Amino acid sequence: MRSSLESIGFLLNPKSVAIIGASEDPSKLSGLLIPNLLRGGFKGKIYPVNPRRDSVLGFTCYRNVKEIPDEVDAAVIAVPQPIVPQCIEECAEKRVKVAVVVSAGFGETGEAGKKLEQDMIQLARKADMRICGPNCEGCISMTYGVRLSTMIPLNPKAGDIAVITQSGGIGEFIISALWNRGIGISHWISTGNEADLTLSDYLEFLVHDEHTRVIVIFVEGIRNGMKFKKVARMAMEQEKPIVALKVGKSEKGKITALSHTGALSGVDEVYDAVFKQFGVVRVNYLEDLIVAASAFSWQPPLKGNRICVISLSGGMACLWADNLSEAGLELPNFSNNTIAELKKLLPSTAVIKNPLDLTAVAFFENIERLDDFLSLLAEEGDAILLYIPDLVLTDEKLMEILIKQVQNGIIRAAEKLRMLGKPFFLCTTSGTTTKYSTFVNALVEKKIPVLSPREVVVAVKAMWLNYKFRRKMGECG
Amino acid sequence: MRSSLESIGFLLNPKSVAIIGASEDPSKLSGLLIPNLLRGGFKGKIYPVNPRRDSVLGFTCYRNVKEIPDEVDAAVIAVPQPIVPQCIEECAEKRVKVAVVVSAGFGETGEAGKKLEQDMIQLARKADMRICGPNCEGCISMTYGVRLSTMIPLNPKAGDIAVITQSGGIGEFIISALWNRGIGISHWISTGNEADLTLSDYLEFLVHDEHTRVIVIFVEGIRNGMKFKKVARMAMEQEKPIVALKVGKSEKGKITALSHTGALSGVDEVYDAVFKQFGVVRVNYLEDLIVAASAFSWQPPLKGNRICVISLSGGMACLWADNLSEAGLELPNFSNNTIAELKKLLPSTAVIKNPLDLTAVAFFENIERLDDFLSLLAEEGDAILLYIPDLVLTDEKLMEILIKQVQNGIIRAAEKLRMLGKPFFLCTTSGTTTKYSTFVNALVEKKIPVLSPREVVVAVKAMWLNYKFRRKMGECG
Repeated sequence: MRSSLESIGFLLNPKSVAIIGASEDPSKLSGLLIPNLLRGGFKGKIYPVNPRRDSVLGFTCYRNVKEIPDEVDAAVIAVPQPIVPQCIEECAEKRVKVAVVVSAGFGETGEAGKKLEQDMIQLARKADMRICGPNCEGCISMTYGVRLSTMIPLNPKAGDIAVITQSGGIGEFIISALWNRGIGISHWISTGNEADLTLSDYLEFLVHDEHTRVIVIFVEGIRNGMKFKKVARMAMEQEKPIVALKVGKSEKGKITALSHTGALSGVDEVYDAVFKQFGVVRVNYLEDLIVAASAFSWQPPLKGNRICVISLSGGMACLWADNLSEAGLELPNFSNNTIAELKKLLPSTAVIKNPLDLTAVAFFENIERLDDFLSLLAEEGDAILLYIPDLVLTDEKLMEILIKQVQNGIIRAAEKLRMLGKPFFLCTTSGTTTKYSTFVNALVEKKIPVLSPREVVVAVKAMWLNYKFRRKMGECG
Repeated sequence: MRSSLESIGFLLNPKSVAIIGASEDPSKLSGLLIPNLLRGGFKGKIYPVNPRRDSVLGFTCYRNVKEIPDEVDAAVIAVPQPIVPQCIEECAEKRVKVAVVVSAGFGETGEAGKKLEQDMIQLARKADMRICGPNCEGCISMTYGVRLSTMIPLNPKAGDIAVITQSGGIGEFIISALWNRGIGISHWISTGNEADLTLSDYLEFLVHDEHTRVIVIFVEGIRNGMKFKKVARMAMEQEKPIVALKVGKSEKGKITALSHTGALSGVDEVYDAVFKQFGVVRVNYLEDLIVAASAFSWQPPLKGNRICVISLSGGMACLWADNLSEAGLELPNFSNNTIAELKKLLPSTAVIKNPLDLTAVAFFENIERLDDFLSLLAEEGDAILLYIPDLVLTDEKLMEILIKQVQNGIIRAAEKLRMLGKPFFLCTTSGTTTKYSTFVNALVEKKIPVLSPREVVVAVKAMWLNYKFRRKMGECG
């Protein structure tokens, strides 16, 4: 049997692709496949297969996959469910290396569907063909410019976050949300029913993948627990964080998962224990998956739980102190040396402590040397958090100058902190003016996360959990 | 002594205002006061006071508040701390009805400052003058078009959410965040050190205020517990929800609050118990304060914990099932009658249960009668949740048509559900295309909340807590 690693390699980076059930109708899923491949800049060969057409979108169309006068690395099967087994059989005969089955109506519908699925897999394996799906949206690789997917026609950025989702819709949500925040992905795989290739197989590939730094998983149920544990341990050893959202905690959630991808959600406590043991950071909300993944992607690793907070609002300083404490993070008192140094910079009335309720006046007076100021704090903590309010002024000209100054000051400071290996998070009210959103975009361009107050806490907590788990595993050997 | 109710009336709706320390420098807080009043469309009289100027921004300037040839309803004092007592004295002599002290350097700095504060208050009370602050940003009333505040020059919308914050910065954050979501406020009061008028006084005013439907409070410490309880009970009896974010849970948070507004945060468990007893919905994040407040403002009250979920993604259906269950909400099974009715509408292969994993095909096929479809579900539950993915298509024209159809379908459905008295929440990926963001804006215009997956859960949970607390109080008598 062809190894899952090799097969997934063909899936994410095939040289030739057959689109079985190819259509020109953009309102059909099958009609999205070729446009998506083209939009992604696919460099390989495209072979539409559809017995009722001579060509699809300018490509010669074949009646049958077997008629294709070339090797076929990967085939996407997007035909009505009753025809799928026949297509699989033909792919097997053609010695297609890996097939994505988009079509639904298999294991998720009950016992009969499960049987059909198993027959299909048996047939495929005999021919050394591995299968992604069925009941999935396929996959996209921004690293290789390949989109074997029915995903919405969005142009994701290339980056180092890999995404595995058992749900196609959730995958689309994650990709859209990352895109909205200017964050790129290496690959995305919608695994569907996982009749053959499972989440653990894809995970193994991504742990080995040099283009991937962070892995995000949306889990309804893990089908191969032993392999999952093995691969999660490897990820931890390689310091490649895995962030997981696992559903099926509740009875309703379990039942829904079963009729969605046929996944048995299992006992939630077991998942929780396994995640903790192997350093998988678990979150409960999709938004948190995005925030945590982007923190890992854009920041140096957090190496402790000592956090320095600087806020231009005393209220926000209180709030973060509470939220961070609750998340197991500490706000250490500054050393005498740092207090002495800060005294030189700040007004005599300033109360110098952590969290530091820096006044707007002190902040703007120090904006040119914010990098020195924050580096000083970096000696006291493992990460630096900064809150600044909206930079809105009555005078448009003054506002423009101010925004530019703050922008440059923050970029310099963030770069210095990155060199020092300390994560840095900026929080501010989401852009209320166009000018302000330009400011946010300029920072995002430099991979400086601009987050909301809760998001900052979510990000730091995720990094701390990852570090704590890893440290514990190191201690256990 | 003038009652707090009457004084707060003068604060939010004065006929004449003295700006003590008025300036034309927009980089100073005192320079923001008159422009903010003008921007808000203030109809009353403005009297700048500054001994070093003859006029400020075209208004005749007085050397002293006593020289103003008119009654002064409200004065804002924005001068350096050492001069504040003298200004208070002069305002008292002038029989100013209420004064806002923006200046800092009082109770929050320790015992000496606290003494100064108390002397000031004694002086004021003798003259029947009440004080807002010190160390605050003043207040704005969108109902009366009055802005006695140093707040950022943002143009809030008028609405029915009132905001009380002990922190000025947090107040600005909340107002900005509401503005960003197209949500309006009735009034905002930044209470600062609360040397005289306290949070409970403002709360009492707002509970009586016919323009306010929801009250948001950011609390560092409550100074008059008895009054707070009395007023919170009144709010509950009037079915006016209060949403609270209380900081000072952690040691660091407590210390920070003390040096911020001089508030003693107290024992957190006591606050928690009081909030629960008097139906105050407590949240832990600023974002959740915004989401909960807007749910109360825009929706009919939730009257139970039975939730119907419709999702175009099976993964999202699982996730909501989990998140809602954890929040104490239930997803009831549909009655046989509803199942029979839904069967007529949906494809024969559809699995009809709650949460309903509605396929995209079924959704778009039913879009013209989405209102009937959702009304059917409204018989089964106390609120309806709908998730739809990004409406992005390859074909621009088709996309435009689709978006319009969905938009109209949702607006009709939301209106029908509102008439039926059932809250309705729409979740979708935040706008990835300009067209899509037009779609979101059209819904927001109709007061249909468009939320992220977690936000939907936060909103429904807040409504459920409020209902549960109220019901419990009803039972207790």
